[in-house]
Amino acid sequence: MKILVLNAGSSSIKFQLFEMNENRSLATGIIEQIGEHDSSGKIEYDGNIIEKKEQIKNHNSGLMLMNMLLIESFTIKSLDELGAIGHRVVHGGEKFTKPAKIDEEVIKEIEQLIPLAPLHNPAHLDGIKVTMEQSPQVPQVAVFDTAFHATIPSYAYMYALPYEAYEKDRVRKYGFHGTSHFYVKKEAEKYLKVENINAITLHLGNGASMAAIKNGKCVDTTMGLTPLEGLIMGTRSGDIDPAILFYLARKNGLDIDNLDNMLNKQSGLKGICGSNDMREIEKMAKKGDKKAQLSLEMFAYRIKKYIGSYSAIVGKLDCIIFTGGIGENSIDTRVRCCADLENLGIELDLVKNNQKIKEILDISLKESKIKVLVIPTNEELEIAIQTNLLLETKIA
Amino acid sequence: MKILVLNAGSSSIKFQLFEMNENRSLATGIIEQIGEHDSSGKIEYDGNIIEKKEQIKNHNSGLMLMNMLLIESFTIKSLDELGAIGHRVVHGGEKFTKPAKIDEEVIKEIEQLIPLAPLHNPAHLDGIKVTMEQSPQVPQVAVFDTAFHATIPSYAYMYALPYEAYEKDRVRKYGFHGTSHFYVKKEAEKYLKVENINAITLHLGNGASMAAIKNGKCVDTTMGLTPLEGLIMGTRSGDIDPAILFYLARKNGLDIDNLDNMLNKQSGLKGICGSNDMREIEKMAKKGDKKAQLSLEMFAYRIKKYIGSYSAIVGKLDCIIFTGGIGENSIDTRVRCCADLENLGIELDLVKNNQKIKEILDISLKESKIKVLVIPTNEELEIAIQTNLLLETKIA
Repeated sequence: MKILVLNAGSSSIKFQLFEMNENRSLATGIIEQIGEHDSSGKIEYDGNIIEKKEQIKNHNSGLMLMNMLLIESFTIKSLDELGAIGHRVVHGGEKFTKPAKIDEEVIKEIEQLIPLAPLHNPAHLDGIKVTMEQSPQVPQVAVFDTAFHATIPSYAYMYALPYEAYEKDRVRKYGFHGTSHFYVKKEAEKYLKVENINAITLHLGNGASMAAIKNGKCVDTTMGLTPLEGLIMGTRSGDIDPAILFYLARKNGLDIDNLDNMLNKQSGLKGICGSNDMREIEKMAKKGDKKAQLSLEMFAYRIKKYIGSYSAIVGKLDCIIFTGGIGENSIDTRVRCCADLENLGIELDLVKNNQKIKEILDISLKESKIKVLVIPTNEELEIAIQTNLLLETKIA
Repeated sequence: MKILVLNAGSSSIKFQLFEMNENRSLATGIIEQIGEHDSSGKIEYDGNIIEKKEQIKNHNSGLMLMNMLLIESFTIKSLDELGAIGHRVVHGGEKFTKPAKIDEEVIKEIEQLIPLAPLHNPAHLDGIKVTMEQSPQVPQVAVFDTAFHATIPSYAYMYALPYEAYEKDRVRKYGFHGTSHFYVKKEAEKYLKVENINAITLHLGNGASMAAIKNGKCVDTTMGLTPLEGLIMGTRSGDIDPAILFYLARKNGLDIDNLDNMLNKQSGLKGICGSNDMREIEKMAKKGDKKAQLSLEMFAYRIKKYIGSYSAIVGKLDCIIFTGGIGENSIDTRVRCCADLENLGIELDLVKNNQKIKEILDISLKESKIKVLVIPTNEELEIAIQTNLLLETKIA
């Protein structure tokens, strides 16, 4: 069976087609700059690329172009061939603790969660509605970034705010990147031949988060109500003293929009050293740039603090897992994040660590009590798998 | 030599008189409700109490009343007897990394720090200026809450904000309760006969903070630019996703003052369960109040996460130290904070823990790798000691 995975953003649609009998990707593509002047669509398959530059007014025309690219590349003959479409949906709130087969009711629920994810959920809904119109016969499934975090206990997901902020406004920790954290923990369980693993997963990319996993279940994560909390990211501050906002607002006459923009887009690595590209920052640091060096130290220090936190709550760990663009590719980040953690039982093998990673790799010393793994993430495949599983269960 | 320690707030002045030859408290007192209708002054000495209810218009009359009470109690014959006055000053910024003998220059510096501590520093300055006028012959010393944290490295005190927030607006982690953290770590060094200890100190009161101490020096602390960051406190939220503020501002039309008031005064334990009195909350929880139970779990969980964090950065710990009103008196809080931390080497002796604490007590199991100590704090004595030391050094 073929499953198409869609990640619809406000001005782009990423897609990937899988042959589920082999968990194999047949084609990946992207429709970009929807609604802009220089919009375009691209598909890659079997080492080939087809690219089209044309006016794409909206998600409807974007998805028409995607369909055309899929057919033109011969990866499918017609849309009827699709066994299902799996949609990435960022925010599932408290309602969606697992994937959901999409119907009118589910669409309504995702709409109700828009205030919690004002940038993402509306774009996902655009994608969902158009594909349901275009391919009414194909079953569609929503897979939520928040779902893996649904097992976090209340004492960890509640904030110490007036209780009505939770009751009335649903303010709590939700967590994100759940599909990635779940995928790599599952891969680790297979690799280490351990069921219900105790692990810390580090998804490090331009957005970055960690999850604490106890007996195979997520018990805490660094992102919160929104993806701003926790680690230092490309342009996001992560944790700060919230009163900094009051201080800066009063001192510099900033309003809520200014502060939001500052913390989400002008902070993080970019705020400290001017760049949010880890490769560039590492080069700058090697050349002696003090702010670049500081940003690398801060980035790793925050991660180490969370490794300690999660060690305390999970107890005896089987492994920690690096994934995401930076986690998979930055050799030096892994060194910095594991330095001086022998006391916790984490010891990196600098030789094993010092290589390009293409598949699961154990980069810890033999004597390290806790394994250090690098596992390439694959959120799209995980969405396809969960979509498939849900439909199988529903049919069975 | 006698040293008077003053803690001048906006509407109260706490004072304590010490005989430094024996590090002994001769009298403690408080002037309350300055500028209000029912203002009063009180001194306690040798088991006696003198109390005066009278109109106290300002800090000047408040300190006149204090002088009268000191003389009336015969703890001093005249103000000339004072060897020095030590003032608690909350915010020393980056300038004051140790106590300072107060002169015009120092007063100016403390004034410049008012934007960083708008509630505290002006009140301290009132106290300082009046005592300098009243007793120009007595040397006066400022002891800063932030000073012990001056050894925190830049990668731990910097926030991942646009760099100019630090350069222009001095936004960084300062930390507070430093005098208390320093006092109890010094006591622990004496008690354990270890120089330059590795420790985690937990100052738990209505305000609460922790410090990570490596080789006797502070390397991190939970409070930040302001005392809002970090642990869950009586009425303060501690750490939250900063984007919660953007969400609530937009959803409920709140402005900066509303949000500041909410996070500093309506949150924390009080926000969750309605009370910020630990004894009351523990009673409510025992009677089955779900929100009280949740608030206790959350309070301890946050602390455990920081114990883990600080274990990771300090390395091999000698001890963790409970102090402050809750740390010294809440048996159950200590149990909750140490539960399931065997993996980190922390094992509480439930029998030893289950007693009223009047002096330093080791409450860990013999086999616990890391000692768990309860040490009653004494910030006023520490201020007197530091005041004394500074003047001795200056004279020598």
